[in-house]
Amino acid sequence: MYSTFKRILIGKPRKSADIEGEKLGKLKALAVLSSDALSSVAYGTEQILLVLIAAGAAALWYSVPISMAVLGLLVILIISYRQTIFAYPSGGGAYIVAKDNLGRAPSLVAGGSLLVDYILTVAVSSSAGTDAITSAFPSLHEHRIAIALVMIIFLTIMNLRGVTESATVLAVPIYLFVVAIFVLIISGVFHYVVYGGGAAASHLEAAASNVSLFLVLKAFSSGCSALTGVEAVSNAIPNFRDPAPRNAAATLMMMGIILGSMFIGISLLAFWYGVRPSATETVISQIAATTFGRSTMYYLIQGATALILFLAANTAYSAFPLLAFMLAKDKFMPHMFMVRGDRLGYSNGIIFLSVMSAVLVIAFHGNTENLIPLYAVGVFIPFTLSQLGMMLRWLKHKPAGWTVKLAINTVGMLTTMSITLIFIFTKFSQVWVVFIFLPIVLYLFTQINRHYNNTAEQLRVNLDSELVIKGNTVIIPVAGLTKVVANTISYAKTISDQVVAVYVGFDDESIAKMERKWERWNPGIRLVTIKSSYRSIIGPLRKFIDTVQWKKGKEDHITVVIPQFVTKHWWENILHNQTSLLIRAYLINYKDVIVTTVPFHLNK
Amino acid sequence: MYSTFKRILIGKPRKSADIEGEKLGKLKALAVLSSDALSSVAYGTEQILLVLIAAGAAALWYSVPISMAVLGLLVILIISYRQTIFAYPSGGGAYIVAKDNLGRAPSLVAGGSLLVDYILTVAVSSSAGTDAITSAFPSLHEHRIAIALVMIIFLTIMNLRGVTESATVLAVPIYLFVVAIFVLIISGVFHYVVYGGGAAASHLEAAASNVSLFLVLKAFSSGCSALTGVEAVSNAIPNFRDPAPRNAAATLMMMGIILGSMFIGISLLAFWYGVRPSATETVISQIAATTFGRSTMYYLIQGATALILFLAANTAYSAFPLLAFMLAKDKFMPHMFMVRGDRLGYSNGIIFLSVMSAVLVIAFHGNTENLIPLYAVGVFIPFTLSQLGMMLRWLKHKPAGWTVKLAINTVGMLTTMSITLIFIFTKFSQVWVVFIFLPIVLYLFTQINRHYNNTAEQLRVNLDSELVIKGNTVIIPVAGLTKVVANTISYAKTISDQVVAVYVGFDDESIAKMERKWERWNPGIRLVTIKSSYRSIIGPLRKFIDTVQWKKGKEDHITVVIPQFVTKHWWENILHNQTSLLIRAYLINYKDVIVTTVPFHLNK
Repeated sequence: MYSTFKRILIGKPRKSADIEGEKLGKLKALAVLSSDALSSVAYGTEQILLVLIAAGAAALWYSVPISMAVLGLLVILIISYRQTIFAYPSGGGAYIVAKDNLGRAPSLVAGGSLLVDYILTVAVSSSAGTDAITSAFPSLHEHRIAIALVMIIFLTIMNLRGVTESATVLAVPIYLFVVAIFVLIISGVFHYVVYGGGAAASHLEAAASNVSLFLVLKAFSSGCSALTGVEAVSNAIPNFRDPAPRNAAATLMMMGIILGSMFIGISLLAFWYGVRPSATETVISQIAATTFGRSTMYYLIQGATALILFLAANTAYSAFPLLAFMLAKDKFMPHMFMVRGDRLGYSNGIIFLSVMSAVLVIAFHGNTENLIPLYAVGVFIPFTLSQLGMMLRWLKHKPAGWTVKLAINTVGMLTTMSITLIFIFTKFSQVWVVFIFLPIVLYLFTQINRHYNNTAEQLRVNLDSELVIKGNTVIIPVAGLTKVVANTISYAKTISDQVVAVYVGFDDESIAKMERKWERWNPGIRLVTIKSSYRSIIGPLRKFIDTVQWKKGKEDHITVVIPQFVTKHWWENILHNQTSLLIRAYLINYKDVIVTTVPFHLNK
Repeated sequence: MYSTFKRILIGKPRKSADIEGEKLGKLKALAVLSSDALSSVAYGTEQILLVLIAAGAAALWYSVPISMAVLGLLVILIISYRQTIFAYPSGGGAYIVAKDNLGRAPSLVAGGSLLVDYILTVAVSSSAGTDAITSAFPSLHEHRIAIALVMIIFLTIMNLRGVTESATVLAVPIYLFVVAIFVLIISGVFHYVVYGGGAAASHLEAAASNVSLFLVLKAFSSGCSALTGVEAVSNAIPNFRDPAPRNAAATLMMMGIILGSMFIGISLLAFWYGVRPSATETVISQIAATTFGRSTMYYLIQGATALILFLAANTAYSAFPLLAFMLAKDKFMPHMFMVRGDRLGYSNGIIFLSVMSAVLVIAFHGNTENLIPLYAVGVFIPFTLSQLGMMLRWLKHKPAGWTVKLAINTVGMLTTMSITLIFIFTKFSQVWVVFIFLPIVLYLFTQINRHYNNTAEQLRVNLDSELVIKGNTVIIPVAGLTKVVANTISYAKTISDQVVAVYVGFDDESIAKMERKWERWNPGIRLVTIKSSYRSIIGPLRKFIDTVQWKKGKEDHITVVIPQFVTKHWWENILHNQTSLLIRAYLINYKDVIVTTVPFHLNK
């Protein structure tokens, strides 16, 4: 039943050899990996305007140079990450680059922030997408948590089905969004040229207004939230079709050009139209309404925007399982994140991500907007570490043209570090949590690593040592005289000459009866009877094993052979005391004895 | 942690030999066994009046003869049950008597109705007690389900602690209730003699009113709900201190006298005072208010009434586990109901009763009053069967004075059967469910019985047959070269000469690597490698076992020896794939092979 249900949801299992077919071409990769970055257009400009409006309408002029600065930062990031892709063709996420060049601690900081960040991505994006829907249909407002959870479940199933299939499903809305925004920008510019706009202020007016450096920096850092998601491509190189680095670099360039044009276009239109940020209407909505009126085109743009916010979460579904795999391979996360599921995805990573983000959505009642700055700072910390790692790499290897490469990454590192500091400086009240959870995550990583190393050391075998054959004492707990017991004794006699049966009785009468029956049957092995005053079987049995352990040769094995009958239907188990299971569980966990279960299958 | 928690709630485990100390003296037995019967006083009279008022105030006069009839029925029941107690000194519940004299089907009908009835008792009594509390404190009304559940949990813990201790706790409120009601009756009669009353109608007026026979019968059957719980004593004879039958009979007589006096006293006062049933105030409350005014005495009576309704549920806690034990012993219910817990009570019966009644309370939102007729009919069916059984017993054994005894039980049987028929005839709309659930319960009983009989037959061993010693082929699934594996191979070699290791790899590379390592190590046994295209370990392993099973001598055992390492802390298990557990669970349930687990305990 469970497997049929799973089959319907997830699809038939796929062969390991099919893995090549799962790889992404450029256009599909753009769809899978860019939704996080491109969706930032939906709120990037608005974040800048929201900060500036605090200093009055005249200050909105500053959005133009700030957007230019963000665009410049995007160019720097794209060029830097292009270098990383070619330097790390097998996947150059911040974790790998930091591990390779900076050592263990920085790599774990990068890996830890990214993992938490992907969880935040899913929670924030699904909540934001829900907001876009409930703004259009206010009656759905009370069901917002349910809607967000349904989206998370939908994404989980899509990703469990496998990367390529989800790429096919996701490509349509993403290209729809890109086309819609470009149509909006071109029509908007045309509209502005023909009808003119309502720009709030000129350069000169703005210069005269009281805009502090702090405010400009804060607005700039807010605008930088538009850049989250750029790293997705470099993390996911192993998912690309060959030649992977070349395809990944091309995808990154495409994404950068599309993101940059959309962002600067929206920012300019917002300034030209004199758009002011509003609690009830988004900037995109205002621009679209001015350009097209409330026409079909307007609703198309709004719909595509809502959709892409949901899909932004999907980027995390590509990135999280892969990063978790890498950390698990390096023994900082549980091995289970390395297991490929029926459809070749890392199912445990996908499910873990879904559960954690669903918990966040429920805990914050779907109001996860306050997590956005936290989420941005969680991206810029690994950005910085990755650039720093690349710098050290060039200094160490000194390949052809290394000075230019070093210069590029130095600029990248300084910029991203500055932005991280600006974030912490201007938005400390929203990002302080990072200084709590990062240490916790790092502690868990190191504890897990220590456990695995300890285990490996204890399990290491000396290949040259001889195998010692020891003696074997067999103990059979019996509850009565049945075929199961007879079968078990016959087996025990094949594996050892020293076999003893133990009967634990609750009163003298039952013990005497058992002894009489045993004598009459005479199976050729000794029966030891023990009276249990407290009606426990495990207690007396444990004491008996202790005695045997003390008496036997130090090197001998002790085997407890447990007779167990297996019912034909699972529910029939409720009709039988599960003593054999209890004994087995207890012995395996607490005693150094070997446990053998001899099954007896009931056939009706 | 679990065991500490259990120790605090339930107390220290007790020796089986302590069981004699758990037995009940007469006064404690009265406290434990009579609360169900005595609490009926709180609603018996009211049930009669509620039916009669439908025919007008004049009809209330009929409550006097009807109460007398109920009293007569009580006398018949007490005398009949007294005979049962002496005839069945080791416990003479309806189930035992019916089994002994009527055969299997009637005994299961009796046992089934009683079991369901005890569950109803707990649900109805805890809800009714809650109503008494919330009538006094209306602000608690919205928490009524929670209050009823807390009471059920409290009773569960008391009963898990053991019978004697709960008897001590329960004796106080029950004797308080008895004293309070007698004070009320005596003062009430005195008050009536001095101040006179307001009797609604005389005999002559009543005779003139339009009271149908149907209505009188309905009122009579309603009044009979006051007799539920009388059977408790005869079920519980084994719980009595020696001489058990004598003590039990004395307890039954005491209970009958107390119940009869209280019931007739309340009924007479209700008639003399002209009390009319009201939706907002109980009959007891009206009588108490008239006699004492709203004084301390009034609140004492109300409080004691509420308390005893809760405690009525406790009767079921003595009776249900004992009946379940008897049915389990006869293989009609799962064996688990035969296990004595740490404190010598039948814990599984206690817990099952609590869970089922809690489910009823939740399902009916605490409004279980409609279940009262169902509950009454569930008592009178086994009453009738028990009397019928006694009749056949006298006819068969013909002891001294058997004709008188037969006459008594014949009268008893005819009366209880008539009442059962009256119930079904006058209240069919409320009791039809009994014709659904009784067949279901009977079906379950027979299915369970069939399973146990089938099992016993399959397990039966021929004591004279010889044990055959067979060959043994050992298969070791290995995942790598570790100390655990080395240890396992060394063990396997001690138990058989035919040992083979199996490695399931997911790709050619890992298989080749494993083969190289094995060759270099050379542990003296053959390694078989299998490639798994679908990343499943169990699938290929199963196929390999099938092949071995096909090749080996038909009579040989196959043992799968699974290496397993045991972590020091349970939570560390999350860091390891539980493949060995999965393999074991699969093999035990689906293959006819012996499974041995060789543990390797990590010590850090």
